[in-house]
Amino acid sequence: MAKSRFEYVKGFENHPILLPNTYIAVRIDGRGFHQFSKEHNFTKPNDVRALNLMNQCAKSVMEEYTDIVIGYGESDEFSFIISKNSQLYKRRESKIISCIVSRFSSSYVFYWKDFMGDVSLKYPPVFDGRAVCYPSLENIRDYLSWRQADTHINNLYNTCFWLMVQDPSQKYKSEKEVENILKDTNSSQKNELLFSQYNVNYAKLPEQFRKGSVLYSDKRNVTEIGKNGKEVVRSRRVIVIDHCDIIGKEFWEKHPHILK
Amino acid sequence: MAKSRFEYVKGFENHPILLPNTYIAVRIDGRGFHQFSKEHNFTKPNDVRALNLMNQCAKSVMEEYTDIVIGYGESDEFSFIISKNSQLYKRRESKIISCIVSRFSSSYVFYWKDFMGDVSLKYPPVFDGRAVCYPSLENIRDYLSWRQADTHINNLYNTCFWLMVQDPSQKYKSEKEVENILKDTNSSQKNELLFSQYNVNYAKLPEQFRKGSVLYSDKRNVTEIGKNGKEVVRSRRVIVIDHCDIIGKEFWEKHPHILK
Amino acid sequence: MAKSRFEYVKGFENHPILLPNTYIAVRIDGRGFHQFSKEHNFTKPNDVRALNLMNQCAKSVMEEYTDIVIGYGESDEFSFIISKNSQLYKRRESKIISCIVSRFSSSYVFYWKDFMGDVSLKYPPVFDGRAVCYPSLENIRDYLSWRQADTHINNLYNTCFWLMVQDPSQKYKSEKEVENILKDTNSSQKNELLFSQYNVNYAKLPEQFRKGSVLYSDKRNVTEIGKNGKEVVRSRRVIVIDHCDIIGKEFWEKHPHILK
Amino acid sequence: MAKSRFEYVKGFENHPILLPNTYIAVRIDGRGFHQFSKEHNFTKPNDVRALNLMNQCAKSVMEEYTDIVIGYGESDEFSFIISKNSQLYKRRESKIISCIVSRFSSSYVFYWKDFMGDVSLKYPPVFDGRAVCYPSLENIRDYLSWRQADTHINNLYNTCFWLMVQDPSQKYKSEKEVENILKDTNSSQKNELLFSQYNVNYAKLPEQFRKGSVLYSDKRNVTEIGKNGKEVVRSRRVIVIDHCDIIGKEFWEKHPHILK
Repeated sequence: MAKSRFEYVKGFENHPILLPNTYIAVRIDGRGFHQFSKEHNFTKPNDVRALNLMNQCAKSVMEEYTDIVIGYGESDEFSFIISKNSQLYKRRESKIISCIVSRFSSSYVFYWKDFMGDVSLKYPPVFDGRAVCYPSLENIRDYLSWRQADTHINNLYNTCFWLMVQDPSQKYKSEKEVENILKDTNSSQKNELLFSQYNVNYAKLPEQFRKGSVLYSDKRNVTEIGKNGKEVVRSRRVIVIDHCDIIGKEFWEKHPHILK
Repeated sequence: MAKSRFEYVKGFENHPILLPNTYIAVRIDGRGFHQFSKEHNFTKPNDVRALNLMNQCAKSVMEEYTDIVIGYGESDEFSFIISKNSQLYKRRESKIISCIVSRFSSSYVFYWKDFMGDVSLKYPPVFDGRAVCYPSLENIRDYLSWRQADTHINNLYNTCFWLMVQDPSQKYKSEKEVENILKDTNSSQKNELLFSQYNVNYAKLPEQFRKGSVLYSDKRNVTEIGKNGKEVVRSRRVIVIDHCDIIGKEFWEKHPHILK
Repeated sequence: MAKSRFEYVKGFENHPILLPNTYIAVRIDGRGFHQFSKEHNFTKPNDVRALNLMNQCAKSVMEEYTDIVIGYGESDEFSFIISKNSQLYKRRESKIISCIVSRFSSSYVFYWKDFMGDVSLKYPPVFDGRAVCYPSLENIRDYLSWRQADTHINNLYNTCFWLMVQDPSQKYKSEKEVENILKDTNSSQKNELLFSQYNVNYAKLPEQFRKGSVLYSDKRNVTEIGKNGKEVVRSRRVIVIDHCDIIGKEFWEKHPHILK
Repeated sequence: MAKSRFEYVKGFENHPILLPNTYIAVRIDGRGFHQFSKEHNFTKPNDVRALNLMNQCAKSVMEEYTDIVIGYGESDEFSFIISKNSQLYKRRESKIISCIVSRFSSSYVFYWKDFMGDVSLKYPPVFDGRAVCYPSLENIRDYLSWRQADTHINNLYNTCFWLMVQDPSQKYKSEKEVENILKDTNSSQKNELLFSQYNVNYAKLPEQFRKGSVLYSDKRNVTEIGKNGKEVVRSRRVIVIDHCDIIGKEFWEKHPHILK
């Protein structure tokens, strides 16, 4: 067969390797999810069903790729941190990005019904992905802090925005007008606005919205059916979904094994 | 907000660009599909439902990314060729790979039921992806020829393998034994074996199995419902699925616009 | 020996490959040559000795690396074009850049005396280097045109600038003032200024200054001493240094073999 | 001017960045120095003049690029370690490699006469270069240990090899024969051979040959001419050239600032 004549094209491939002994952060991000969330009537500013679906997809990724030591998600994005000493796909960049994005994307459709009930999925969604290396513990913690700080900023803004846009008195004419008002406010002004105009204490809103979702593997007591057919409680490694602060050191002191 | 303190981590990102004025071949490949096809009882050596599902996913990718000028698929892999002058995602490698893999993967679950009927999908599948640049027309045609030559080699082998493994007389003890017999045969010996032992004329098997699937955009007459409620036939650009030879020049002479 | 314990560090190396079947342009550029040319009293705007030294260094590079098909230089920069099918250092980017820069730099000191006479070299100069791939004949010709167009722009400007700065009547107070005058002029105004104020016909200035230097390998009759001790004229491949237009097609029609 | 029409070619450049917060090891290596050392009659196995010239070139590099915190050299190679937080050339890989290689190469010719006396340099030498990132202190120390362990292995071998090749009794017929004898010996056998056959105690050979050269910046008392014209001793930062062990921890405990 004429195999050999064409095979030279394989020589055009490059296989960039992610630097060994660094944490790899793979971040995926929904493409066109502004539009997607409208077409599927997501509740604004936060649709808890859609957020839980994202978490389930992340769990599915982490069950498949056990070198991921922690996942962090908010809105339509998720970050996965791969351990420093991982040899996953020999640390080949395109393999690592594509496989994680692929599993997340197929999971999104696979688990859609379990979370979105009778909202029917109109078309297959797209997530992009990228991989970034972080050499030190400080760097990778700062990466996660960056994403969680972003969650806070975005959620506070969105909480104001949607309450104002949906204000029953319709005192704001348009989304544009609301944007213009909000763009000149700082955090405490937004907190004040929420409280004075809508009687909302931002600090009392669900942690899932304010902190995002933190996924990691931990030991938990799990009830199982033993050989004798009776229930037994066993300690098992499971993927835990939490909504806690990961900027401060408390979480990391409690879970020192995660970033080793 | 503590945004600025953490934001420096963005500086660790690299955004490699795929060389301008080159064809980009993005190839995706099912991971663990040997196992996946077993668990979902795919017919061997070719499951026409699963192949058609792959084609539907490819079509879904090409409808989303119109800079893809041709797609070619076989078994659990698909190649997409992006035009030389495409500025898709500014030719950023990780964006291009991840978005195409993502759309393909979510489509695979989304369209599963339409093709696999009541075979239930057991878990979300994973496809990996890579991108390779080819500078010249000759290179990109050789790339496609390489994949189609591979289809031929694999399909001839697999046709022999599965007929022998499933031989009703059970004359071969194991898959291992069949592998050992086949590894020392050339193409014409395999053709001969098929004909003499199983009365199979390889050249008469469906082209979809022997040639793989070629997808490209072309004008076709499409029947639509006009404004007056009556059927009208209009010429529209649609994604065509073909199973033809793309190694020889005939196809390319007939479709000169594809690679320009 | 403790060799094995440390050897793992080799695994941190990446070896990016320059895309096959593309022209490779390696451009080197003097670092801090504004200062360097002052300290060594280079004639302004053009020091023909220094330009000829640059050409000699380029020749030295091209004699060492025969996969370079053409070189183009101006001021303190030089571009070297490597043929599309070159396998030099397996097309490894860092090897190609570093070796060309190295040979150029060591040549600059090695040949200094031959061109700069009794101007003594005060310190070892530094050139940086980069490599860029160009897929098509049009691209690589445009690259060379870009550099030659730049030569024209820079030389016209510098010719005006230095005549004005060195104006015997000292009518311009400072380099700053001259810059301010020139920045709002176009090409024809600069030509006019040269002619009216300094009686300089720009088009009559040496081609080496206006066109830069073009180096390529060509057959030339060379006088050699034959075995019988007598002079013979033989046709030999030599590196030719020319100062001609390479933007138009004339040069390329005359030398079709260079870019094949 | 037709500038704009060609300028698009700049868009083909890629500027890969060396990962922030990692040590950068730039290693340069003489090309064809086996031949080069023959043509310039270097003493074998070690030519102290040539080694000192290499050290002078390294010093010249480190005086120009003060972000280099330590240099280590042996034979015709030199490694330069750039600090983790360096922003040299925005950490652009090709700039960093090319500039260091360039300065080293031009220095080699510039300082040749000072070290090689009346041995005349026959042609401009070439050094290649590469850059590798190391994330942790352990990694970069292991890198340096790797190079020094290599020095030991090579020097022990070369000491045996050249004594045997130059054996006054001419008992070995050829370099090939010596190679064959040596390839099956371990370190202690080589030590024994040196002592028994040539009365050479390897451990007593100059440290420069056995340990290579370590360059770093340190405070030293320097005698200068003060304003009053008299000599004064001042503490100054200078590049120190040492030939000490850098595998063990002693050196690093004594110089904790080098790798911070």
